[in-house]
Amino acid sequence: MIEDKNPQRTTLGALGEFGLIEHLTKDVEINQPTTIKGIGDDAAVLDFKDKKIVVSTDLLIEGVHFDLAYMPLKHLGYKAVVVNVSDICAMNATATQITVSIAVSNRFPVEALEELYDGIRTAAKVYNVDIVGGDTTSSQKGMIISITAIGEADEEDITYRVGAGSTDLLVVTGDIGAAYMGLQVLEREKQVFQVNPDNQPDLDAYTYLIERQLKPEARKDIKLLLKALEIKPTSMIDISDGLSSEIMHLCKQSNVGCNLYEDKLPLDPQFMNVCEEFNIDSTTVAINGGEDYELLFTVRMEDFDKIKGNPNFSVIGHMTQESEGIHLVTRANTKIPLKARGWNALSTDEDQE
Amino acid sequence: MIEDKNPQRTTLGALGEFGLIEHLTKDVEINQPTTIKGIGDDAAVLDFKDKKIVVSTDLLIEGVHFDLAYMPLKHLGYKAVVVNVSDICAMNATATQITVSIAVSNRFPVEALEELYDGIRTAAKVYNVDIVGGDTTSSQKGMIISITAIGEADEEDITYRVGAGSTDLLVVTGDIGAAYMGLQVLEREKQVFQVNPDNQPDLDAYTYLIERQLKPEARKDIKLLLKALEIKPTSMIDISDGLSSEIMHLCKQSNVGCNLYEDKLPLDPQFMNVCEEFNIDSTTVAINGGEDYELLFTVRMEDFDKIKGNPNFSVIGHMTQESEGIHLVTRANTKIPLKARGWNALSTDEDQE
Repeated sequence: MIEDKNPQRTTLGALGEFGLIEHLTKDVEINQPTTIKGIGDDAAVLDFKDKKIVVSTDLLIEGVHFDLAYMPLKHLGYKAVVVNVSDICAMNATATQITVSIAVSNRFPVEALEELYDGIRTAAKVYNVDIVGGDTTSSQKGMIISITAIGEADEEDITYRVGAGSTDLLVVTGDIGAAYMGLQVLEREKQVFQVNPDNQPDLDAYTYLIERQLKPEARKDIKLLLKALEIKPTSMIDISDGLSSEIMHLCKQSNVGCNLYEDKLPLDPQFMNVCEEFNIDSTTVAINGGEDYELLFTVRMEDFDKIKGNPNFSVIGHMTQESEGIHLVTRANTKIPLKARGWNALSTDEDQE
Repeated sequence: MIEDKNPQRTTLGALGEFGLIEHLTKDVEINQPTTIKGIGDDAAVLDFKDKKIVVSTDLLIEGVHFDLAYMPLKHLGYKAVVVNVSDICAMNATATQITVSIAVSNRFPVEALEELYDGIRTAAKVYNVDIVGGDTTSSQKGMIISITAIGEADEEDITYRVGAGSTDLLVVTGDIGAAYMGLQVLEREKQVFQVNPDNQPDLDAYTYLIERQLKPEARKDIKLLLKALEIKPTSMIDISDGLSSEIMHLCKQSNVGCNLYEDKLPLDPQFMNVCEEFNIDSTTVAINGGEDYELLFTVRMEDFDKIKGNPNFSVIGHMTQESEGIHLVTRANTKIPLKARGWNALSTDEDQE
């Protein structure tokens, strides 16, 4: 759907590797006091003094994690940063730096990389992270983005997957499922477009879902919110791989069970409408969908009063003894064992060689 | 040449993403006192106390940076770590952690990834770095490895590309050019093998060159050596992209010129023999070849006595005023302007889509 109608195309070879890196990173600003030396040496130099450091990394592959047919390059760059910042947020830490490595085949002109980098720089500004290094090279096929995010936190603030107590409450931020349904809408429009390229899609009824898919945000506000509420979560994880698989991670690492309540799942009205339109069960999507960059955490029961009624948080269940297992309690009040379905990049059979 | 004769093949889909990561990383040990939490959470947690941190990242793409026709997977894993550790060494720092992201198409069985990871783990042990995170996913084509290396150093030890004085000596570690000629030998054998797969190559005359290409080592010893000699380099860089382009980086960032002396280049006898066999000018290869994971640095003139005669170091030239330019002084004592040729992953025209 999104097509580059810009006739100006500069080949990558014309700039060369060093030229390209310099070209893409010339406007990169350093704002973090912890960044001593950014791009331009063999390695970046950082100084966190007495803070702890958190490090996370993600690899995004065209055709596996994103489809340029409906993902504008600027959005892709933005999202690639968000995905990594979200992991730092899930440690209850603050992202401070990223490194960005990009590989592209020669089908991409320099202008395409500029757009991608524009999105990366925009996200870096929004999330106040310095771009301190990276690599730009060619690929045999398609586009590959590898980002490593670095963050800082005081030791007492860091929240792991392990730590949930067997009577803790299970809390999720924002709403869930919308990113997955946004993808379904985009996939459908892509197919319509392939049949009739002149068709102008009317996507007004899907704007929230599409935004959740194409331009997600990481919950960097949650650390501050929790601090203000004087809550230290006992465990935390980001739910980008789907709620159910992440609940299982928390339970497994904390040696607890869980009851998740179907009627407590925070679902956006647009999400529910579109599930109906697609004839898909909204609960199934909400717990298995993935790509909602929200945070899932546990708090002690006595913190309930601090959280209830806060529009950022939904208490969706409670932990139990490990022996009780992990269940979804349906609206009809039956207990179904929760299965980790999640999103699995390796189960697809798309080897095209 | 290297073929997997193991009939045991487990498909990637059979294990799934989480299963695969767990399978590959179950033996990963944590040895660094700076690693608080390694693999298994949203992010690793590190604590460097009052040390400075250095961070470097590299992306390796099959068909661009390596060829599995002659690169055994275990060696590839080892080399992928070395490439990144070398960047940390070039800051005069000590590598302490790495994150490892891998994407592979479904043509690779799990056993192939095990071999790759075996090499990565071996290198992690040799260089005493903890594997603290990463990502494993599928690719549309071929194998992609992205590694980020983290290291530590005292502030006063860190050496940048900027800092060379106009009368400093230019020093390189080890010998140069061998890795490039090793690649030429392997490429030739690959072509022979394609014509006659039964041909058993006799590579005895090339062992050093092939080892420099397939199993390079990073110079983590240099920091200790320099410390013992009480030398603080004024600038430093790794020469993986080729001596001439790295000299130009040092000169550009330090605002100095340079005279590089052809007769001072440290060349291995096997390298010189094979250059003759291939009818290639050894000086051209030595200054443009690349992939020698040696270090290039500058020291003050008064440090000459500490370095001369040390088999680890070769004084190959001296810096000059910037206005004098950057030259190679040939054996015939003529001055040729040095050009950055280096290795350029983007100039190749191998888009195969």
